[in-house]
Amino acid sequence: MTDGSTLFELGPNHYGKSRIRLVTVRRHPDRHDLRDLTVDVALEGDFTAAHVDGDNANLVATDTMKNTVYAFARDRLTGPGEAFGLELARHFAAEPQVDRALVTLREHAWARIPLPDGPASDAFTRTGEFSRVAMVAATRAGASVEAGIEDLTVMKTTKSAFKGFERDRYTTLAETDDRLMATKVTALWGYGETAAEAGFDFDAAFERARSTLLAVLAEHVSPSVQASIWIMATAMLEAEPSIDWVRMVLPNLHHWTVDLAPFGLDNPGVVYVATTEPHGLIDATVRRTG
Amino acid sequence: MTDGSTLFELGPNHYGKSRIRLVTVRRHPDRHDLRDLTVDVALEGDFTAAHVDGDNANLVATDTMKNTVYAFARDRLTGPGEAFGLELARHFAAEPQVDRALVTLREHAWARIPLPDGPASDAFTRTGEFSRVAMVAATRAGASVEAGIEDLTVMKTTKSAFKGFERDRYTTLAETDDRLMATKVTALWGYGETAAEAGFDFDAAFERARSTLLAVLAEHVSPSVQASIWIMATAMLEAEPSIDWVRMVLPNLHHWTVDLAPFGLDNPGVVYVATTEPHGLIDATVRRTG
Amino acid sequence: MTDGSTLFELGPNHYGKSRIRLVTVRRHPDRHDLRDLTVDVALEGDFTAAHVDGDNANLVATDTMKNTVYAFARDRLTGPGEAFGLELARHFAAEPQVDRALVTLREHAWARIPLPDGPASDAFTRTGEFSRVAMVAATRAGASVEAGIEDLTVMKTTKSAFKGFERDRYTTLAETDDRLMATKVTALWGYGETAAEAGFDFDAAFERARSTLLAVLAEHVSPSVQASIWIMATAMLEAEPSIDWVRMVLPNLHHWTVDLAPFGLDNPGVVYVATTEPHGLIDATVRRTG
Amino acid sequence: MTDGSTLFELGPNHYGKSRIRLVTVRRHPDRHDLRDLTVDVALEGDFTAAHVDGDNANLVATDTMKNTVYAFARDRLTGPGEAFGLELARHFAAEPQVDRALVTLREHAWARIPLPDGPASDAFTRTGEFSRVAMVAATRAGASVEAGIEDLTVMKTTKSAFKGFERDRYTTLAETDDRLMATKVTALWGYGETAAEAGFDFDAAFERARSTLLAVLAEHVSPSVQASIWIMATAMLEAEPSIDWVRMVLPNLHHWTVDLAPFGLDNPGVVYVATTEPHGLIDATVRRTG
Repeated sequence: MTDGSTLFELGPNHYGKSRIRLVTVRRHPDRHDLRDLTVDVALEGDFTAAHVDGDNANLVATDTMKNTVYAFARDRLTGPGEAFGLELARHFAAEPQVDRALVTLREHAWARIPLPDGPASDAFTRTGEFSRVAMVAATRAGASVEAGIEDLTVMKTTKSAFKGFERDRYTTLAETDDRLMATKVTALWGYGETAAEAGFDFDAAFERARSTLLAVLAEHVSPSVQASIWIMATAMLEAEPSIDWVRMVLPNLHHWTVDLAPFGLDNPGVVYVATTEPHGLIDATVRRTG
Repeated sequence: MTDGSTLFELGPNHYGKSRIRLVTVRRHPDRHDLRDLTVDVALEGDFTAAHVDGDNANLVATDTMKNTVYAFARDRLTGPGEAFGLELARHFAAEPQVDRALVTLREHAWARIPLPDGPASDAFTRTGEFSRVAMVAATRAGASVEAGIEDLTVMKTTKSAFKGFERDRYTTLAETDDRLMATKVTALWGYGETAAEAGFDFDAAFERARSTLLAVLAEHVSPSVQASIWIMATAMLEAEPSIDWVRMVLPNLHHWTVDLAPFGLDNPGVVYVATTEPHGLIDATVRRTG
Repeated sequence: MTDGSTLFELGPNHYGKSRIRLVTVRRHPDRHDLRDLTVDVALEGDFTAAHVDGDNANLVATDTMKNTVYAFARDRLTGPGEAFGLELARHFAAEPQVDRALVTLREHAWARIPLPDGPASDAFTRTGEFSRVAMVAATRAGASVEAGIEDLTVMKTTKSAFKGFERDRYTTLAETDDRLMATKVTALWGYGETAAEAGFDFDAAFERARSTLLAVLAEHVSPSVQASIWIMATAMLEAEPSIDWVRMVLPNLHHWTVDLAPFGLDNPGVVYVATTEPHGLIDATVRRTG
Repeated sequence: MTDGSTLFELGPNHYGKSRIRLVTVRRHPDRHDLRDLTVDVALEGDFTAAHVDGDNANLVATDTMKNTVYAFARDRLTGPGEAFGLELARHFAAEPQVDRALVTLREHAWARIPLPDGPASDAFTRTGEFSRVAMVAATRAGASVEAGIEDLTVMKTTKSAFKGFERDRYTTLAETDDRLMATKVTALWGYGETAAEAGFDFDAAFERARSTLLAVLAEHVSPSVQASIWIMATAMLEAEPSIDWVRMVLPNLHHWTVDLAPFGLDNPGVVYVATTEPHGLIDATVRRTG
């Protein structure tokens, strides 16, 4: 490989363990608390010898990463996922050969089963409404935290238009004042530097961001998916000062009005066919100016 | 094909259209109501000529089935899915060559987005907790209705044991007094003959069956998944007299306690690894005696 | 549960372990042989006590089933999957409380990587063309074997028509002399009683059935998917006397001709949009007469 | 939105149409040629007004993108996917408000069904071995082309070791001289600037890259997945001068040796359990030096 290593060089690289499935149960006298996460760990750093020379001395085995996640979960997964991610990322970033440790956590929501005399103490249903995401990156110098929502499927049955768009020889789409807008929201946001400090309330910040997103989604009038992102993201930035930017990735899951005229029926916005492909895909970041 | 048709014969057969994706919006002055269903239609009957002779005269095109679902949805999908399925199934069963028409409806739940002054009138999130299923079969003589729940993921963090099972030379599983029990519930039940009559309240019956299932799931002590089915199903039969039988199909989604001893930690039922394969699969029907 | 057991009774039931993922490597001096299967085991029998009384004494743990599959694979998975399935099914059916043991094997195909001087001896690619299925059922009295193909995706670009079908008020589909026919084939067939005897060549029978299916699929003229099933299945029954019946389940994966007229272009069967939902679904069994 | 637009600004953004499903049939006298692609289109450029002001005048509708793909496919999808992607990307990049047009094509492989007298002229099976990917980016100034392979699942049954890795207090993995190595290859590579010129033979370059990847994968001795990437990628760069860099993303799909000792059996590399989660994930780029 000597020749190879002069003609070729290692470019960007990282490695880690993905889809570490982690469930914890905290058994209090009056109730159990359930957490359910999928964790990914990835490391960037000086791994040239492993690639070029087959020398694994600098490699933390991905099996070790998995073990570390489970061991840390024993006593340290007691607050927000972001805080747990920070502990993990800082642990891995302490290795001298590691430049940057990335920990991604997807937390899946469970709700207590409702019983006649209140929520169950030890039985749960997976709600499936969305996953809460946290992405933590640590270097020896510091850490940054992003958070967000994945797989939140939403629909507006009015207050969504699409008109005045460019028309060329391949355009057949009619303009519309009133369409269904359906999407599966991915929203990510970045916290400012102070958020990585001890004591920041990631749960409260998440909750303000989430509830603002949903309320604005419900109430705004949408001239396009692009404008919807701007309207929702600016509202989130206004509502939550700890957030520096918001990125939204919104598929446009088209619902087509069914032509019922052949059957002697009108269809004034009643019957739709839901589709998944093809779909529009709108991806935009909104940030504080300057 | 003359020779073929004496040596060979057509056995059981059916055909239809699957995964008809249907969304309806009913636009009331004060609110919109949203329904979201996936519909399958299948026909059994005299289709020998289509198979053996290539003569399609008796075939209702599956495209026609799809059109019929959308056309019927215009004005008739206003009550329970079961009632809509009965209208569709009876329509198809009226064709002389059809012996039995089967309509399966999976209704996907959406919830109004909560706003400061109440639920949104025209914006929704897909809840994803479960799909409500209805299976309707109609012949010229009558109709039968089954209903149920699919994809309800649940977990009990205690009150689940598994011991006293058979041990042979291939058995290594330890007995346990206390394990996690996690499953994705499929529950189906059959209504008695009178339920297909006009006016039966399928929504109320579904709600009683669903809430009983969940409450008993949460509260019962489980000696095995098999026993859990019996306990839940008998409770549902007790709670809802209109149901003749309950079938449950429960994967046992194993959660293994992680061995943290190599890291100097105990693990008293705190940290688990969630798995999806392999899984146990328990399928049983409980019915009224006689 | 005393009252319950007089008002209610256990109906049809079975249980087992699903998705046991099994890979074997046989290390010969000149080459390695790779097998990759997903195995499901299910038992029917006298499990009333487990359901009704919470008494697990009759239960073979599904974990034991998994262990048994791996242990048996050590030395006995050397011939056709059907033979391995027979050994497993007979083992489980020997338990006195078991009436019927069902073993389903899905074998995933791998091909040796081609090298300049021939196929690799120890490196493989997953071909993904289809999975070979075997379903074995054993009782104390005997055994039966079914086999088949799953997930074989095929397309005919001509020799497929659909016309002369019934037209009603909901029919808008045009008749066509020439359409694309695309489907994902599930084909299952049942071997006669003698096939379960030692020495039957399941591999050769499978190969004759598979190659006949593909050749007839390619060459026949299809007036409908229904007729295609009849034509392919009768050819398979003619080609392989050990088979008593063939069942085919064929989704009709519609490919719609794109209307290019708005762009000043014709489209004489050139450009299609592939769809997956909704789809037709045709399910029919063809068997020897009498 | 006046206030908002001074406090907040639009950051990186793009939009387009994803999962455009395209099938073409070229009907020659002696045979049909079948192509099957999934196409994504995305545009970057001056879309601030659409986001901030709800002014869609600069927006090319994603529906128009879909139409354009189908219209272009009529006569221009006759050579490599890369060439088709270049035509599409240059078309969209010609819009004044577009800075960069990205077209991604995934081409799904179909093989002619083998018949006694040669391959079928008009009947095909989807091979499913891998998808061929092309990613084309065009600006008004020029274009760049990347190509690659997705979803190529491979296994080496020997010549794979993993030892000498770092051990810390969370390490339990044993060193091994001989393990199974299984992965689902994603390999992407970038062509140099001249490749976007007319006449470059993308098919031949792809074939050299693909066959080199597979041959080296089969024959090399792997000290780690990281080293395997280096060895395969440098061989590809040596074999195909038109390629500037190769990026590989390889999950490590662990296959664990089953402990058969409880059943009185040894397991000298014969019986494995295949797993999908968690998995290692190794991502590295190798490029020409300088």
